[in-house]
Amino acid sequence: MSATRGLFITIEGGEGVGKSTNIDFIAQRLEQQGIDFILTREPGGTPLAEDIRQLLLNPREEAVAENTELLLMFAARAQHIAEVIEPALAAGKWVVCDRFTDATFAYQGGGRGIPMTKIADLEQWVQGDLRPDFTLLLDASVEVGMSRASKRGALDRFEQEKKDFFESVRTAYLNMATLNPDRYRVVDASKTLEQVQQSLTQVIDEMIAQGNA
Amino acid sequence: MSATRGLFITIEGGEGVGKSTNIDFIAQRLEQQGIDFILTREPGGTPLAEDIRQLLLNPREEAVAENTELLLMFAARAQHIAEVIEPALAAGKWVVCDRFTDATFAYQGGGRGIPMTKIADLEQWVQGDLRPDFTLLLDASVEVGMSRASKRGALDRFEQEKKDFFESVRTAYLNMATLNPDRYRVVDASKTLEQVQQSLTQVIDEMIAQGNA
Repeated sequence: MSATRGLFITIEGGEGVGKSTNIDFIAQRLEQQGIDFILTREPGGTPLAEDIRQLLLNPREEAVAENTELLLMFAARAQHIAEVIEPALAAGKWVVCDRFTDATFAYQGGGRGIPMTKIADLEQWVQGDLRPDFTLLLDASVEVGMSRASKRGALDRFEQEKKDFFESVRTAYLNMATLNPDRYRVVDASKTLEQVQQSLTQVIDEMIAQGNA
Repeated sequence: MSATRGLFITIEGGEGVGKSTNIDFIAQRLEQQGIDFILTREPGGTPLAEDIRQLLLNPREEAVAENTELLLMFAARAQHIAEVIEPALAAGKWVVCDRFTDATFAYQGGGRGIPMTKIADLEQWVQGDLRPDFTLLLDASVEVGMSRASKRGALDRFEQEKKDFFESVRTAYLNMATLNPDRYRVVDASKTLEQVQQSLTQVIDEMIAQGNA
């Protein structure tokens, strides 16, 4: 008899929204509730996927073509899915993944203007029917996120350019949340840590109820 | 005023068909005829593409998922196209490429049974309208190819398995030639070197006539 398939939960959000702290909190809550889960992250998740990620991060004189970058990101993702995510879900474990394909839509699509349809084609090719059961979006205004990330006040010219980029990233995330209301849970990350964690607890308990349904 | 676009010529064939020797001959003939061309090869062609190729060749404990392998091959190809092939063609140079996407169809599709449509989807995503103007298929029976490659006679059990694989590769190549008669030129590589090079000369002169048309 095969185990009930686990839930696939992705955590998304821009800079300075407290993703690491909140993922720690989510993991604690799942443990307390006796959920068998794994925590993993994109890009990466396996030695080969990490090597692919290194190829993208290593500075080099050669320009990395847009198509090359997207294919490498999805190659790492394909490996992560085949070696980590799918086996865990099939064994009944929950998978909590720090960023997934929606980050590609938000950063490469929204932020850098690569057509969303190009990304969607690769998503379909790589993932088939695999989509997160829940995506938890930690959302805060770009001002709040950037000031938290940099711990400073006013923005210089370079930061202003970054600000426009992060606005586009945030807009893309919020659009996906609007288009996928069944899957997305948006948590206002500009509130106090206590308030954010209260919201997270509610969302997690809803997931557990669904996982047991 | 922009230069006339160069011709994109790919050289394909299984094991032992004399690809290297014949590519040298083709290059000599093009030089004699005053054609401005570059010679390149797949997989590889740029430092990043070579690094991607190394990821595929390095032995590792982790199994490489089928999707990962295909995405990495096309990532290297996308870089090769963006950095080498397209700039040369746009500058009016001919590009002679030792293997290209048809090798993926033949080896991964025909040989290993990955659905041709999966490969065709990535081909379309990566290449758009880019296809070779001519594909020169050096064709020989698998027996001839394998005995030339190994310089030996009878096949052991491992070689018998390889034989079945290479039969599937050859069949895939010949099918592509049948389906794309305008683009493909099949040269019988089982003949003597002199006869093969006579055929190659004819094909090259036909390409030059077309390139000048």
